[in-house]
Amino acid sequence: MTPEAMPNAFRPGAATLSDTEARLVERRQSLLGPAYRLFYERPLHVVRGEGVWLFDAEGEAYLDAYNNVASVGHCHPHVAGAVARQAATLATHTRYLHDGVLDLAERLLATMPPAIGHVMFTCTGSEANDLALRIAFQATAGTGVIVTVNAYHGVTQAVAAMSPSLGAGVPLGAHVRTVPAPDPATGGDIGFASAVAEAAEDLARHGIRPAALIVDTIFSSDGVFTDPPGFLVAAAAAIRAAGGLFIADEVQPGFGRTGEAMWGFERHGVVPDMVSMGKPMGNGYPVAALALRPDLAEAFGSQARYFNTFGGNAVAAAAALAVLEVIEAEALQGHALEVGRHFRDGLRRLGSRFPRLGEVRGAGLFIGLDVLDPESRTPDAAGASRIVNGLREARVLISATGPRAHVLKIRPPLVFSDAHADLFLSRLESVLATLG
Amino acid sequence: MTPEAMPNAFRPGAATLSDTEARLVERRQSLLGPAYRLFYERPLHVVRGEGVWLFDAEGEAYLDAYNNVASVGHCHPHVAGAVARQAATLATHTRYLHDGVLDLAERLLATMPPAIGHVMFTCTGSEANDLALRIAFQATAGTGVIVTVNAYHGVTQAVAAMSPSLGAGVPLGAHVRTVPAPDPATGGDIGFASAVAEAAEDLARHGIRPAALIVDTIFSSDGVFTDPPGFLVAAAAAIRAAGGLFIADEVQPGFGRTGEAMWGFERHGVVPDMVSMGKPMGNGYPVAALALRPDLAEAFGSQARYFNTFGGNAVAAAAALAVLEVIEAEALQGHALEVGRHFRDGLRRLGSRFPRLGEVRGAGLFIGLDVLDPESRTPDAAGASRIVNGLREARVLISATGPRAHVLKIRPPLVFSDAHADLFLSRLESVLATLG
Repeated sequence: MTPEAMPNAFRPGAATLSDTEARLVERRQSLLGPAYRLFYERPLHVVRGEGVWLFDAEGEAYLDAYNNVASVGHCHPHVAGAVARQAATLATHTRYLHDGVLDLAERLLATMPPAIGHVMFTCTGSEANDLALRIAFQATAGTGVIVTVNAYHGVTQAVAAMSPSLGAGVPLGAHVRTVPAPDPATGGDIGFASAVAEAAEDLARHGIRPAALIVDTIFSSDGVFTDPPGFLVAAAAAIRAAGGLFIADEVQPGFGRTGEAMWGFERHGVVPDMVSMGKPMGNGYPVAALALRPDLAEAFGSQARYFNTFGGNAVAAAAALAVLEVIEAEALQGHALEVGRHFRDGLRRLGSRFPRLGEVRGAGLFIGLDVLDPESRTPDAAGASRIVNGLREARVLISATGPRAHVLKIRPPLVFSDAHADLFLSRLESVLATLG
Repeated sequence: MTPEAMPNAFRPGAATLSDTEARLVERRQSLLGPAYRLFYERPLHVVRGEGVWLFDAEGEAYLDAYNNVASVGHCHPHVAGAVARQAATLATHTRYLHDGVLDLAERLLATMPPAIGHVMFTCTGSEANDLALRIAFQATAGTGVIVTVNAYHGVTQAVAAMSPSLGAGVPLGAHVRTVPAPDPATGGDIGFASAVAEAAEDLARHGIRPAALIVDTIFSSDGVFTDPPGFLVAAAAAIRAAGGLFIADEVQPGFGRTGEAMWGFERHGVVPDMVSMGKPMGNGYPVAALALRPDLAEAFGSQARYFNTFGGNAVAAAAALAVLEVIEAEALQGHALEVGRHFRDGLRRLGSRFPRLGEVRGAGLFIGLDVLDPESRTPDAAGASRIVNGLREARVLISATGPRAHVLKIRPPLVFSDAHADLFLSRLESVLATLG
């Protein structure tokens, strides 16, 4: 995929912009340069967020069915308040003793399987995956990494080299092998685990010792594959048989989003060696982490120290702790489970009337919906783009994903309700009606 | 240097801790694992910060002469207020149009030489240096990197592999060469530039095309080398002659700290190809950036897109903009210049009376002070440690640096005044008197 082919990327000139929008686009080009991308044919100029709503400069409200960072709702007062209080009290680092980071670590580890006994803090999911790689390389004395064909794990040099979804302009490392995502339509669990075993053999054949299989446990950039739960067990066994570790990238599915569990890997009944997390962790505050088996932390810590200036700072800890408190107090995991079912049921009902819609996948409030050509019933990226942009004009925000860019990615803040889902469905119905 | 040999690292058992401190240390070990390090023989348990002061759990005030992150003062109300307001209004990313990140970019680029025309936002200095490497590799089709012998550029896999100060447990990359830091005592500018040219030749001799020379322009981890201004010009010319780029790592000296200029490279009259920045940028909020020549951004952006979920988010932009406003409104650069001179004069006066003190180096409020064995006048890491820990007991915070861990690193918030410097000097005098 070329950089330009990023699903739902703004292409200058494709739509008429207001003077304000055009000036902002021009300023971005001039100041930030060409590596930045905007969403939508007509980019959205946001000024305010609240709950599941984003507001543009004209005061128009947009139903946010896309942003998983503001997971407990845009500008949730409990989190914003915790950030404001701590930023006015102390904002320093982990080379002093401070209770906040320890309270957070304790609470996070309580959500993990007993085998996962330590947690290390970073600022971004990229940094967490990058640290996981460093630790895996050290622990296995290997460098081979296995990822899915359209995986995304971040933007540092090391993790960009194992993120094929960044496109052909960002070469994969010579030590990286890709396996097809576990699409139930093409083999499911047996096929996936076999592909992992074969990739590990291929690495070994090239003199590269396998270090890790890393997967986003909801396979977001591959197209959202959630079922049947359990298919990761055999894959984790396959990488371990080859001497490597199993790393669960929970940046997308973590923190209750799947409804069925706090973490995506739990749905599969597998215990990872390391677990990375990020995006929703601070509801917008830059905080991320890597939870791991203590023996792996020992192996790494005996050789290397780890200090991340902002990682686990007092404000980051307060933000992340507040998010965990809200998830529990508002019972958002169970809420995501129920609303997600209602939402998918509604999407399937629409699908029975509109042949553009194909399979509905997902768990909780992470939903993938295939868009197909209504005649040939084959993947239809252009159709997906028309729906995404049609919804944007109808003031509903989603995006598209998958190697063929034909999967609608629906991933609202967890405070999304049945009523919000119904509103989404009615606007989607209108958009589909106009597309014919 | 082994991990344990980190200057000023806490070693369990070396001092008697209070019950509270001991419990916190135990919780850290149990939750965060062994890669984390604390400062001081008796770690500091901080609970609050204000201006140049940190307060411990008993309410004792510590004069902070070390933390450059809280550069405009701990919990500066203008910055904390901007963070609180924006966190309650909107905290979203750069794939929507938003004025904040553009206002910040404009203001930052206005402080740069005209050749530096774009800026890209990350969350940490590590990520900024990692991105600089990715761009340098792409632009030069090379991978060779030259750093100083005790350089520190961050903790991602790519930049840890070019950070020798992390110790022998973190191997340097096969594509990395080190050059002695430009210690005026051992050659200064001519020696440094020659070493860069030789390292580039050695890379080429090994079939590795030179991509970049990257230096912290105040050479913090090497021991703080600031004089004579201008010595970087020949080094930048040497790497460019070899086909590589010159990257100024401004994470430590940037944002007015050197007093003489906004950026450390400016003191040297050199224009870098890329400029990374971080720590003080958000006064504790995780925000960092890479400013660069537009043609380099074009070369990268034509192949790769760059998206950092939290990088340049609306709150990060508000925090960084507020920091720039405070630096200007409180004239902190000029203040750092004057207080730094007063401070270094005082340190030199003390040095004339205490043979443990050697050369005083630095610019503005970034000061390196050699500690020597009073008899042999050779580098004395143990003496430096006794001073650092003696000051901590006298409630003054600094640390040590340099490959021989004998350089006192004095780097207070920029709001440090002459009176604070005098207080520091009087407490240092007491500590030196007890050491004999």
